Amino acid sequence: MAFSKKPVKGMTDFMPADMVLRESVLAQIKQTYASYGFAQIETPMMEHIENLTSKQGGDNEKLIFKVQKRGAALARALESGKPDELVDNGLRYDLTVPLARFYANNKEALPNPFRALQVGPVWRADQPAKGRFRQFVQCDIDVLGDSTNLAEIELIAATCTALSRVLGPAGLNAFTVHVNDRRILMAAALQAGFAEEDVAGVLVTLDKLDKIGMDGVREELLANGAAAQTADAYLALFRQEGDGASCRAFCEAVDGAGLAEVAANLDEILRAAAALTDNAVSIVFDPTLVRGMGYYTGPIFEVTIDGFGVSIAGGGRYDQMIGKFSGEDVCACGFSIGFERIIALLADAGVTGSDAAVRDATAFLVDAKADGTRRMEALEAAQRLRAAGRDAAVFPMRKNMKRQIAALEEAGFTAFEKIYAD
Amino acid sequence: MAFSKKPVKGMTDFMPADMVLRESVLAQIKQTYASYGFAQIETPMMEHIENLTSKQGGDNEKLIFKVQKRGAALARALESGKPDELVDNGLRYDLTVPLARFYANNKEALPNPFRALQVGPVWRADQPAKGRFRQFVQCDIDVLGDSTNLAEIELIAATCTALSRVLGPAGLNAFTVHVNDRRILMAAALQAGFAEEDVAGVLVTLDKLDKIGMDGVREELLANGAAAQTADAYLALFRQEGDGASCRAFCEAVDGAGLAEVAANLDEILRAAAALTDNAVSIVFDPTLVRGMGYYTGPIFEVTIDGFGVSIAGGGRYDQMIGKFSGEDVCACGFSIGFERIIALLADAGVTGSDAAVRDATAFLVDAKADGTRRMEALEAAQRLRAAGRDAAVFPMRKNMKRQIAALEEAGFTAFEKIYAD
Repeated sequence: MAFSKKPVKGMTDFMPADMVLRESVLAQIKQTYASYGFAQIETPMMEHIENLTSKQGGDNEKLIFKVQKRGAALARALESGKPDELVDNGLRYDLTVPLARFYANNKEALPNPFRALQVGPVWRADQPAKGRFRQFVQCDIDVLGDSTNLAEIELIAATCTALSRVLGPAGLNAFTVHVNDRRILMAAALQAGFAEEDVAGVLVTLDKLDKIGMDGVREELLANGAAAQTADAYLALFRQEGDGASCRAFCEAVDGAGLAEVAANLDEILRAAAALTDNAVSIVFDPTLVRGMGYYTGPIFEVTIDGFGVSIAGGGRYDQMIGKFSGEDVCACGFSIGFERIIALLADAGVTGSDAAVRDATAFLVDAKADGTRRMEALEAAQRLRAAGRDAAVFPMRKNMKRQIAALEEAGFTAFEKIYAD
Repeated sequence: MAFSKKPVKGMTDFMPADMVLRESVLAQIKQTYASYGFAQIETPMMEHIENLTSKQGGDNEKLIFKVQKRGAALARALESGKPDELVDNGLRYDLTVPLARFYANNKEALPNPFRALQVGPVWRADQPAKGRFRQFVQCDIDVLGDSTNLAEIELIAATCTALSRVLGPAGLNAFTVHVNDRRILMAAALQAGFAEEDVAGVLVTLDKLDKIGMDGVREELLANGAAAQTADAYLALFRQEGDGASCRAFCEAVDGAGLAEVAANLDEILRAAAALTDNAVSIVFDPTLVRGMGYYTGPIFEVTIDGFGVSIAGGGRYDQMIGKFSGEDVCACGFSIGFERIIALLADAGVTGSDAAVRDATAFLVDAKADGTRRMEALEAAQRLRAAGRDAAVFPMRKNMKRQIAALEEAGFTAFEKIYAD
């Protein structure tokens, strides 16, 4: 078979300058989250296929990279003629499903509440596009075992602090945290007249509001069989309040006393988060925020960069997911940073890896005619620099030394020692 | 389908203490390699299946986790009835094959020689055992485009410096770098009377010397069809020299002038590496060192910890592999640290994550009866500590606070602020 030089479709090779930027941003995010008491954990990048296809992952379950069985098990599956039995594992499409499994498996050895930090790649076989990759890094924080809204408040404060720190130097410190609650979404749809079993579909449509507008949402609701009266009553709820809708007023309009507790909880989250975050950050109630994943049960959040309309982080409360693994419900709440989006924004703003780290290294260029003694002198001089905390490397001297030095300068070398034959 | 709490077979969940140790060791290795001028790059964890099954990877090619095609391509493959056509990608089993593809793809934008550092997981569907996982991290450095032995010498010096730094604090600073050359292995087998096409098989057997001894090797050679005279002549070569065999003397005995250049090159590597590394490190010529991968073309190396007999790093020169991707040969040489082995050795020596990092964090414990104002005071006090560079977290107070505090102390919290209702 022929070799292929290109990476697998939708995936990326990262050059040294890319890596300097990525490592520096990751270090800042990790350090910020550590200051909020989040402890790093790691799960395997492969999960049991049955864990990944449990209807928790929404549309992402359609995008799984599935891993084939091996050896005798594969042979048996091939004989059975059932395509579903050919695979036993899959690459994780997010860090939340693996976290739920991890916590169910290790709960006894962890503090309660447990604050987890996860950083790592996930895979989705989505159609690749600018800024959308088939392998991409997520940075997740989760609070497990905390039923109070201290979890939501600290998650939002921590994520905003991390984002401000990372994006601030690029002048992108103005962003908006949209906050909503799954129970409000449910109540609003029911109040407008949708049947409970239709709500999931209605939310899929509402989730497209940014892209297709109010008229587009109405059209799609009707196309999916909604009565015009129901669709209009539904959209009227969102029209009356607009973007800055007060959470309490909206909930009052939707379901009076029925949502009072939900509204008071969300109101406290909104006010506390606003008090704890930078002034350039807006924390707003957004009754149209949906979040696709099926596992959310309470408050949900999403961060957009002002002026870009692009989502860079999202999360929410998912109190019933861990119970699917352990048989015992554990309340949980998380926030995930879309690391690749952050990197793309920084790159577009002109932040590059070479700006982020000057290596200030010395290159020793050894002429081909230099003898063993001279070569050894170069090797030992480089070693002495390293022992003194400096960076150094010993290279063969190229015929076109001017070009060689230019390329090394580009790579971050700033001093050059030439070693010739005596 | 039922959920499974356990990680996929042969793979591991890493707890916070594990991660502190892993992150700290990784940071030390990365920092050391940076001081030798190695620039970090990253490739996708998935590769084209044809790149992974090109006979470069030796036995590892039998252990690939293969990724199934998706959608219409999968349907077509299922219809065709050919099991090989069901997969299009695989998880990488090492970092060398992806590096060769990366370099062929990006060569024009990289300095020449290019010093690459890669850190990341690889996958092999091996039978799991103590210290052998199906997902494990490798740390590789490679010098691409340097045909001189400056590459080998600096690779060995850099790897020994990294290993000394990481293992030294655990008292494991005595280790041995075994050095050999593929061309010596080839010449020795031919000289003993093996046919050229049988050498690969002979080396597979010789590679088992550590496990089965000289008698075992002889037995297996005979079982594979070798003449007794040939097997005895072959083993006599290794017997006469013993562990401390002088490279020049061994080569002289094997093939006189034919190996003179190879011997002089290896001798310079051995002496320079010894001069550049810590006194506790032994650098020895080991004519029985094989290294399994088919792609090595020149010097090969392997590091064992004295007294443990376990290999913790290995590498060598592979001058023909990149050409398979680019059509143009590029000389290359690399050294790979078995990160999981290092971690296992440190853990066995009693080095733990909690020793490696005291977080010195403050936990605020908020009573359920505390009102919004008191809760906000706690949240803001925690935020002030973080702004001052300290770590803090706000938790709901548990009924059994003594137990809660004990668990938090275990997790690294050292100060506790209790917030009650007024």
